[in-house]
Amino acid sequence: MNDSIKVFAPATVANVACGFDIFGFAVDNPGDELVLRKTDLKGVKINKIEGDEGRLPLDASKNTAGIAIIKFLEAIGAESQGFEMDLKKLMPLGSGLGSSAASSVAGVFAANELLGRPLAQKDLLPFAMEGEFIACGSAHADNVGPSLMGGFTVIRSYDPLDIIQLRTPKELYATIVHPHIEVNTKDARNILKREISLKKTITQMGNVAGLVAGLMLPDYDLISRSLVDVIIEPVRAILIPQFDVVKNAALENGALGCSISGSGPSMFALSKDFDTAQKVGRAMQEGFSKVGIDSDCYVSGINQAGPVVIG
Amino acid sequence: MNDSIKVFAPATVANVACGFDIFGFAVDNPGDELVLRKTDLKGVKINKIEGDEGRLPLDASKNTAGIAIIKFLEAIGAESQGFEMDLKKLMPLGSGLGSSAASSVAGVFAANELLGRPLAQKDLLPFAMEGEFIACGSAHADNVGPSLMGGFTVIRSYDPLDIIQLRTPKELYATIVHPHIEVNTKDARNILKREISLKKTITQMGNVAGLVAGLMLPDYDLISRSLVDVIIEPVRAILIPQFDVVKNAALENGALGCSISGSGPSMFALSKDFDTAQKVGRAMQEGFSKVGIDSDCYVSGINQAGPVVIG
Repeated sequence: MNDSIKVFAPATVANVACGFDIFGFAVDNPGDELVLRKTDLKGVKINKIEGDEGRLPLDASKNTAGIAIIKFLEAIGAESQGFEMDLKKLMPLGSGLGSSAASSVAGVFAANELLGRPLAQKDLLPFAMEGEFIACGSAHADNVGPSLMGGFTVIRSYDPLDIIQLRTPKELYATIVHPHIEVNTKDARNILKREISLKKTITQMGNVAGLVAGLMLPDYDLISRSLVDVIIEPVRAILIPQFDVVKNAALENGALGCSISGSGPSMFALSKDFDTAQKVGRAMQEGFSKVGIDSDCYVSGINQAGPVVIG
Repeated sequence: MNDSIKVFAPATVANVACGFDIFGFAVDNPGDELVLRKTDLKGVKINKIEGDEGRLPLDASKNTAGIAIIKFLEAIGAESQGFEMDLKKLMPLGSGLGSSAASSVAGVFAANELLGRPLAQKDLLPFAMEGEFIACGSAHADNVGPSLMGGFTVIRSYDPLDIIQLRTPKELYATIVHPHIEVNTKDARNILKREISLKKTITQMGNVAGLVAGLMLPDYDLISRSLVDVIIEPVRAILIPQFDVVKNAALENGALGCSISGSGPSMFALSKDFDTAQKVGRAMQEGFSKVGIDSDCYVSGINQAGPVVIG
């Protein structure tokens, strides 16, 4: 058994238009890289974090990946095992791409691998969620779920936790555009309405049912018709300059749908093939650049693997 | 081409626990039988209606089946064609089993068949919905959809109308118990809350997604976990005496789930095999009979055919 491991955990798009707090999918790019080494000293030590511009805490008990590992070690009764970690953020923080979830997943996945897999991969979820709790103030699973399990996941229930993995069609590609502005996750939650009309709830349920059926059949037209959010997007879109322009640019260039990734400010689109997904990305970036906002663009298939060992 | 036809259209269970206004499925039994004959006299004439205890109007312009045929004839420009009809209700009225929908569907299906199928079957839906409108005061499709198309249907959207048919597992059986009490559909709608908490909406969306995935995979445990309604059932259950007793009896006897059929008072359960579905039915009926309420029980698979010609 090795004493050192290097892993990658994928970024994720949560909510996916109609599925607030229940839908999420993983992408091949971007993601986090994490090197974990066994040490003789008890406790988890973070040596360095790259790509965070110094914003993430090096104190493991305050760091999303650190917490996830600590809770995992407690649960399997291996508190005496020491680890040291190098974390490389290959994605922007606070971008709505599940940055903290990817770090949590990378950490707990690496620890489980190094210790000879005492737990099945899906059983790592609660520990990764505790990492999320540190970062967001609430233990959500719609980023952690797909980052850990890969693919498109449904959080059917939080209590008890019940996560379902859906097949997705091979020719489905995600475009993610991250504008260089910042939206605080807590703010993005606080502006949401606490009460929803029964009418909107029915509309949203129809789209949730349609998206699940569309992905499973698969039926791209149905996916497209179902990528509609009448509850969250209308409220949160005001936090993203150029939202309507960028969304329309995606749709006009052939995207099946376009909405906010997680709590934003990143926006995602889904397309039926790679070329369209790239064209959509260019059009979305142009929408932001019209008002002088720089952005990054990522295009990939739906990640099916979740976290992987890369060295 | 015949001048006379006899058809059967199935009863339906709408809402199906978590899917208020969006889910419905058809059953093999009960249903409506309708005989339609071409006549030389313009207009639609209803000769007789059996099984309604004299409660349904014989005036075609006020009858759900009559209206559906009249609207269909107008749409295809065949107003000069005359019809006469005998309707045999093989199910209780106002029972939450889509009685008016079955009549509408039987009528418009029979007319379309007799005229050599000028329209595809799915395109008959708007006319059947107009029949429903007469009966319920609102043009719902969650009974008409599955009665016309068979199987388990999702109304993804009402505007524009978008209905999806889902495969259902072969070993899925429905139990329907109709207690001899009456709940008015309009009353059942009026007591519903117009605003839903975001938290309940998320829970319900999770179950909607879970039920669609469970049916399509198929995964009976997932179907069972998803047959939960936190929005409508808690409000409407008070209209049904013994609701909790009957529901618990179903679950204790092996049902995957149990809830209100449509707006009630009938209750439905889904089970994994026919024997369980029968046992569940007996237990549910006992629940009602404990307080002196008589009931009818129907057990069948999920109807896959929709309306059929039977003579």
